Amino acid sequence: MITRLSSYFVRTLREDPADAELPSHKLLVRAGYIRRVAPGIYSWLPLGLRVLAKVEQIVREEMDAIGAQEVRFPALLPREPYEATGRWTEYGPNLFRLQDRKQADYLLGPTHEEMFTLMVKDLYSSYKDLPLALYQIQTKYRDEARPRAGLLRGREFVMKDSYSFDIDDAGLEAAYARHRGAYIRIFDRLGLEYVIVQATSGAMGGSASEEFLAVSPNGEDTFVRSPGGYAANVEAVVRPLAEPVDASDVPAAHVEDTPDSPTIESLVALSNQRFPRPDRPWQASDTLKNVIFMLCYPDGTRRPLAIGLPGDRDVDLKRLEAAVAPAEVEPFGDADFEAYPALVKGYIGPAALGLGEAAGGESPAGQVRYLTDPAVVAGTRWITGANQPGHHVYDLVCGRDFSSDGVLDVAELRDGDPSPDGSGPLSLARGIEMGHIFQLGRKYAEALGLKVLDVNGKLVTVTMGSYGVGVSRAVAAVAESTHDELGLAWPRQLAPFDVQIVATGKDEAVFSAAEELAGQLSAAGIDVLLDDRKASPGVKFADAELLGMPTTVVVGRGLVDGLVEVRDRASGERADVPVAQAAAFVTAVVRG
Amino acid sequence: MITRLSSYFVRTLREDPADAELPSHKLLVRAGYIRRVAPGIYSWLPLGLRVLAKVEQIVREEMDAIGAQEVRFPALLPREPYEATGRWTEYGPNLFRLQDRKQADYLLGPTHEEMFTLMVKDLYSSYKDLPLALYQIQTKYRDEARPRAGLLRGREFVMKDSYSFDIDDAGLEAAYARHRGAYIRIFDRLGLEYVIVQATSGAMGGSASEEFLAVSPNGEDTFVRSPGGYAANVEAVVRPLAEPVDASDVPAAHVEDTPDSPTIESLVALSNQRFPRPDRPWQASDTLKNVIFMLCYPDGTRRPLAIGLPGDRDVDLKRLEAAVAPAEVEPFGDADFEAYPALVKGYIGPAALGLGEAAGGESPAGQVRYLTDPAVVAGTRWITGANQPGHHVYDLVCGRDFSSDGVLDVAELRDGDPSPDGSGPLSLARGIEMGHIFQLGRKYAEALGLKVLDVNGKLVTVTMGSYGVGVSRAVAAVAESTHDELGLAWPRQLAPFDVQIVATGKDEAVFSAAEELAGQLSAAGIDVLLDDRKASPGVKFADAELLGMPTTVVVGRGLVDGLVEVRDRASGERADVPVAQAAAFVTAVVRG
Repeated sequence: MITRLSSYFVRTLREDPADAELPSHKLLVRAGYIRRVAPGIYSWLPLGLRVLAKVEQIVREEMDAIGAQEVRFPALLPREPYEATGRWTEYGPNLFRLQDRKQADYLLGPTHEEMFTLMVKDLYSSYKDLPLALYQIQTKYRDEARPRAGLLRGREFVMKDSYSFDIDDAGLEAAYARHRGAYIRIFDRLGLEYVIVQATSGAMGGSASEEFLAVSPNGEDTFVRSPGGYAANVEAVVRPLAEPVDASDVPAAHVEDTPDSPTIESLVALSNQRFPRPDRPWQASDTLKNVIFMLCYPDGTRRPLAIGLPGDRDVDLKRLEAAVAPAEVEPFGDADFEAYPALVKGYIGPAALGLGEAAGGESPAGQVRYLTDPAVVAGTRWITGANQPGHHVYDLVCGRDFSSDGVLDVAELRDGDPSPDGSGPLSLARGIEMGHIFQLGRKYAEALGLKVLDVNGKLVTVTMGSYGVGVSRAVAAVAESTHDELGLAWPRQLAPFDVQIVATGKDEAVFSAAEELAGQLSAAGIDVLLDDRKASPGVKFADAELLGMPTTVVVGRGLVDGLVEVRDRASGERADVPVAQAAAFVTAVVRG
Repeated sequence: MITRLSSYFVRTLREDPADAELPSHKLLVRAGYIRRVAPGIYSWLPLGLRVLAKVEQIVREEMDAIGAQEVRFPALLPREPYEATGRWTEYGPNLFRLQDRKQADYLLGPTHEEMFTLMVKDLYSSYKDLPLALYQIQTKYRDEARPRAGLLRGREFVMKDSYSFDIDDAGLEAAYARHRGAYIRIFDRLGLEYVIVQATSGAMGGSASEEFLAVSPNGEDTFVRSPGGYAANVEAVVRPLAEPVDASDVPAAHVEDTPDSPTIESLVALSNQRFPRPDRPWQASDTLKNVIFMLCYPDGTRRPLAIGLPGDRDVDLKRLEAAVAPAEVEPFGDADFEAYPALVKGYIGPAALGLGEAAGGESPAGQVRYLTDPAVVAGTRWITGANQPGHHVYDLVCGRDFSSDGVLDVAELRDGDPSPDGSGPLSLARGIEMGHIFQLGRKYAEALGLKVLDVNGKLVTVTMGSYGVGVSRAVAAVAESTHDELGLAWPRQLAPFDVQIVATGKDEAVFSAAEELAGQLSAAGIDVLLDDRKASPGVKFADAELLGMPTTVVVGRGLVDGLVEVRDRASGERADVPVAQAAAFVTAVVRG
């Protein structure tokens, strides 16, 4: 197939789009692969659509290979099934909701667990029908609060979602393993550098889950790895509780006047100056910082949560959000402080916190739920707020002087933190979530009544898995990982065209030689993008580099010597090839 | 490829779904091709999705063949472009509208003229860039008042929509002709019996337009054909005005007491009895029936419209709706009659109708706009309402005694009506709208400012065409036109599988012979559906007929004689074939 740039629906831009931050976003727009229609909503131009179709095909082949069967559900879905599982409410503002002309409630599907569950319930009734795996490649919707990064975080996007149905846990585990294998093959074929990390299951519910993250400094997800092979999304990391400490020689707690020490840093400095510790200087990690957030539950209730953690750590908001989902996290504002007069802003201490006997509800005294970091264990000794302005309490010992309502591990992780698997220090990196596999279990089947007869004729609830691949996101992730400063640089299996032929100059012989070569390659089954435009060589070379086909053939000045130049986009290597051998040479390059 | 029914995600139903009226709807659900999710919203099961994909591929190939370039727009679209063209309002309740979390207005795209126009405006700027044709195969939404007929009138459906962009009318006509040719090839390849008819352009705007209708007694569209080759959707038929009549000898109009004649039939009977006409009996066509409707405009205003037509005809609501679009038609209710006291229900006559001098607005006397059928011309003589209960006026002559505000041709057409092309009587038939091609002209380009520089460096407005194919609808239309009383009967090019092999009995040799034959066919590149279930031969034969693969091979009792039976689904023909030759025989049948 020959496609001529002179009539191809593409225009390259010299300027980055104003709203783009990431290279993949800038380049996909500048190279004419996609165009923004609204925040987080994009159109696919011919070049982009060709890449998307290739990603889809790889995903489809690997899903078919594990025996998953393709179906397609609507995107416009009735409220009732999502009401039955609670997700109509739990999704909060992330769900696009609408009403039809009869005021019936609908949503634009963010994921289809409910619909697949009901479909299997409709069709199947016996253990003999299982195992079953179904998938679809389909447009999904999520009303992101901050759509950004182009295709990486869109509000309308293409996903492959699949669902497994099994009679028992062993079946689910086998289905999960098959999907895991398929995902490894998919991301290998896409050419992504990725890691498989433990993950939390969030709004999805369920137990075991892993994410496939494309390693990228611009990724939105942070993950950790240990020398022993442990890997997890930071949201899923559970640090072990610290060892208890003997505090028998710690003096009684004492409140001190600590003026002008609003920050941890100033508090540490003042403490070292006025209340020096005999054995070593005070450090930020000797202070207990108590941070308050307001949690907003899907049913509309709002409840404060206090978190106590060493002063050298901050709360990682994404870890906190994952831990409290489906509640959303909001700052604890001035109005909230007014509503809880026992809480003295900047000087909150454990004495004002914790439900204690009243655990499970708020105490009449306006106490709030208080959870502490795994570092805050029996015997640990802290400098912390004294619940009066300008005062802190020293030598406050956990277990002796205060206790919390439980442990919550939502502190920011750091390079060098000990790994939960004991194999050494953790290292942190960032990634783009490309796939997510869940052992859902029976949550949806129970909510929607999906039961089948087992071998003994007894009705049993089916157990499910749920598995997603970001298909449109993969286009951006590959662009993100393969581009360079000149433009896109597609791997062969995803490039919209195998070869771009650039005819330069005004010599008619050049254009006819380029046409002839294009014809030979096309006859060999190679997809050719032929730059037959009347434009300067500089513009054409720049566009070829921006568009990013893996191989470029320049038909130009060398032609008088019987030569064309073959360029490899990724490596930059160039080779002069006799024009008579060019078709064979390029065919060999493309076939790899 | 071999697909085994024992593990394929399909269940056939013995009972028709309760909400289904049409055979295609019943059969696609009963055979497990689709399932209803909500009114007018369906899921595609594996069998159905395979047919849909084949239709898509045929459409894609023919669009590519005329040089149209594939893109893909979002379904979730911002309000502003549709506001600019007026369609945000004009679509009325047919549009799914929603708001995002920031209360910005969005819609689910029913068709994408605005978006394509803006995209071309974004990328192109010169006549040198034209002509251009773009298309997409994409999910569309329309909040139909009465979703019915399964996939034939859905609220979420798949369409191919394309758009042409040209510098001048000649270019548009050429683009239109190319699309017309592509559509002919598409519908030929789908195997549909279809007609190309003149059409109205409705909410789309624009001038010339034609529809491709699949001929079907269950179609929602009615069309006419003439012996001379004229063909039009009834909405697009324009009957010529009748010839004026000499009325010089008609007596003066006279009001008569006509008790107990509430219907045209009773009025004619009474007239013949009490006021006989000397030359011939009165007929229904001698009466002038005045019917009133309330028109509801997109901006919310409501205005009555009176239509005068011969009493032997009724108003065709679909013709009326097309004629007054984007206004919607509602009945003129009792409350409306109260608001217009001059209108005497059942006895409305021209004297109470017509704006006359006040044309363009409503007269102070509460007159309403009055339009008459093409049969109501100067000199025609009528019996009609006298605007008082129980009274009619006789010998009321058009032009002498009354006049209307204009002509409106919305009467029901009948077999035998003269054709507008003068070639003889019209015949009526019904069809399913499968394609619609429009010469849009400059309406959208003007509204959205799509101009390019012409050869003289002057900015000119681009002229556009718009072209649609109902892709999901085609699945149902083909089912509708090919099924029989036993089930679906797919043409080869659309069948989900080329061959269904039915293994019957309990003999292990039968199943292994069936497997072997399936393997041979699969190796020859034939897609095989193998019924390897433990079920009775009766169930399997019935399912094979219901599912509708074009060829069935029965491996069963004949095997002891070395024979299998090859059945043709469409013709019912059967042939006994030696098992050793079965693969070659079936391959030849499939290859045609």
